[in-house]
Amino acid sequence: MNFTTWAVIGTGALGGYYGARLQQAGADVHFLLNSDCDHVRRHGLRIESVNGDFELPQVNAYQNADDLPACDVTVVALKATHNHLLPKLLPPPTRDGGLVVVLQNGLGVDEAAAEIVGPDKVVGGLCFICSNKVRPGHIHHLDYGRITLGEYTADQQPGGLTDRLARLQADFERAAIPIALTPDLLEARWKKLVWNIPFNGLSVVLNASTVEMITRPPTRAISVALMEETLAAAAAVHNRHIPPTFIDDMVSATEQMKPYQPSMKLDFDAGRSLEIEAIYGQPLRLAQQAKLDVPRLEMLYHQLKFLNDRQMTRKNS
Amino acid sequence: MNFTTWAVIGTGALGGYYGARLQQAGADVHFLLNSDCDHVRRHGLRIESVNGDFELPQVNAYQNADDLPACDVTVVALKATHNHLLPKLLPPPTRDGGLVVVLQNGLGVDEAAAEIVGPDKVVGGLCFICSNKVRPGHIHHLDYGRITLGEYTADQQPGGLTDRLARLQADFERAAIPIALTPDLLEARWKKLVWNIPFNGLSVVLNASTVEMITRPPTRAISVALMEETLAAAAAVHNRHIPPTFIDDMVSATEQMKPYQPSMKLDFDAGRSLEIEAIYGQPLRLAQQAKLDVPRLEMLYHQLKFLNDRQMTRKNS
Repeated sequence: MNFTTWAVIGTGALGGYYGARLQQAGADVHFLLNSDCDHVRRHGLRIESVNGDFELPQVNAYQNADDLPACDVTVVALKATHNHLLPKLLPPPTRDGGLVVVLQNGLGVDEAAAEIVGPDKVVGGLCFICSNKVRPGHIHHLDYGRITLGEYTADQQPGGLTDRLARLQADFERAAIPIALTPDLLEARWKKLVWNIPFNGLSVVLNASTVEMITRPPTRAISVALMEETLAAAAAVHNRHIPPTFIDDMVSATEQMKPYQPSMKLDFDAGRSLEIEAIYGQPLRLAQQAKLDVPRLEMLYHQLKFLNDRQMTRKNS
Repeated sequence: MNFTTWAVIGTGALGGYYGARLQQAGADVHFLLNSDCDHVRRHGLRIESVNGDFELPQVNAYQNADDLPACDVTVVALKATHNHLLPKLLPPPTRDGGLVVVLQNGLGVDEAAAEIVGPDKVVGGLCFICSNKVRPGHIHHLDYGRITLGEYTADQQPGGLTDRLARLQADFERAAIPIALTPDLLEARWKKLVWNIPFNGLSVVLNASTVEMITRPPTRAISVALMEETLAAAAAVHNRHIPPTFIDDMVSATEQMKPYQPSMKLDFDAGRSLEIEAIYGQPLRLAQQAKLDVPRLEMLYHQLKFLNDRQMTRKNS
């Protein structure tokens, strides 16, 4: 491995799977957990994967970030809803200047890490994976798994394909994790939003599968209109000009997908808080700052906020 | 009574209540029913009302419109989703030139009657009533009950306060039905849409009560934005300029309402088809013809169409 020591901040469906793959490939991995820590410390991690099941009977499990060693790479695999914890969680494993790889969707997530460790230490990553935590320490990896990695830049210009991206790619691929590199992380983030904005949100609001949404004309019309607003926002906010044919590509890809529950739908059905701000709130606010009207994005944002707020209120009452 | 014989087309929560009140006041009322006809013919109508319960052991009940006598007034109290039946149902009771009073919400409903009986025979009505059919022949009138009546005009100009409106008002009021008259039916229809468009649709999509929708900031923001689009549509489509303060009035009125399930929510929960076209589809199409962009109205229309189509498909499969 190019990078020897790894910290995983957030050992859930995503961090648990990728971290276990890295340890399986020989990396020295340190897992930060919350409620599952005791269990994982005693029993390790069990990965049930479409690519082959495996177990790691012994892993380095931590409940307190302060106990993490300084690592070459720190992988942020928390839900973006927990990014307010990063100022406490990131400094210990990055104290000797290691890299941070932010495996989160949406906008503003790389910035959250960059504010703590400095912009030149941050690599952003977009995951395309179906994976669930079924029990403490037990991850079910159902399908896909690819990560797209790109350099974060403070000036919002494309960061290019750097040597360290190539070294990260080599390490991940040694761990059986397919990696694509992008010279333009922001463009990749916006492209991912083109899919996430319609299908994550509408799946929650309408209790609908991707198949239903893309097949039935009314939801197909909303989805395409939301994609058009997202393209307009990418251009107005960050001067990223995604061609309109990309919308056709996303529609075709969705038509050909196996029936799939978007992650926000899984979160909602499980009573977990939704990643609304990274995927909707931040793009909306940036579009508004750029004087761009995105009424459908705004309405979907408000519908999701209503549903999430109500669910969280009921849960806590 | 100024008008002696009355036909009620559609003897449900609305037609059953108003028709029974008219018969109770001495009118000669002829009720058209579908599946409930036999039951009502044998047992009559039973009204449980906030204004006092009463029973009509004997009513004139018809299963077939062709058997209806010619009437002075024919009240259309069907769901607007059944207006495709009007060409069969309206001609018999109106064959001697009687009036038609259309008790439906939305746009295009007066036109549906006018195409059959001629524009000069149509009066439009907007009901503000909480009423349910709890069993065949058994109507529960929970609250309110006022009807706003206005003249339909083919040229979309205000029809004024005519003598026949005053005579209709007198008859309804004799039957303990509060009546307001409007010189401008189209304006009244748009004003009603200002409330119906946000609260009917969002209550279905978000499974929310009016209290929740008006209290929580995200749904309040959507509601106000939808009201603004409705005002813009009224101006662009029919040159009706509703003042923006009307939005504040609707917000305050909703805040002060008792918890209330909009009729579309009741229909949805009961598995009945929703009045989407009259309340959303028609205003949307008219706005589009007037080159006005109403993205939120369009998105809510599509969301409702998706939910309704899916529910109707499941029901029939």
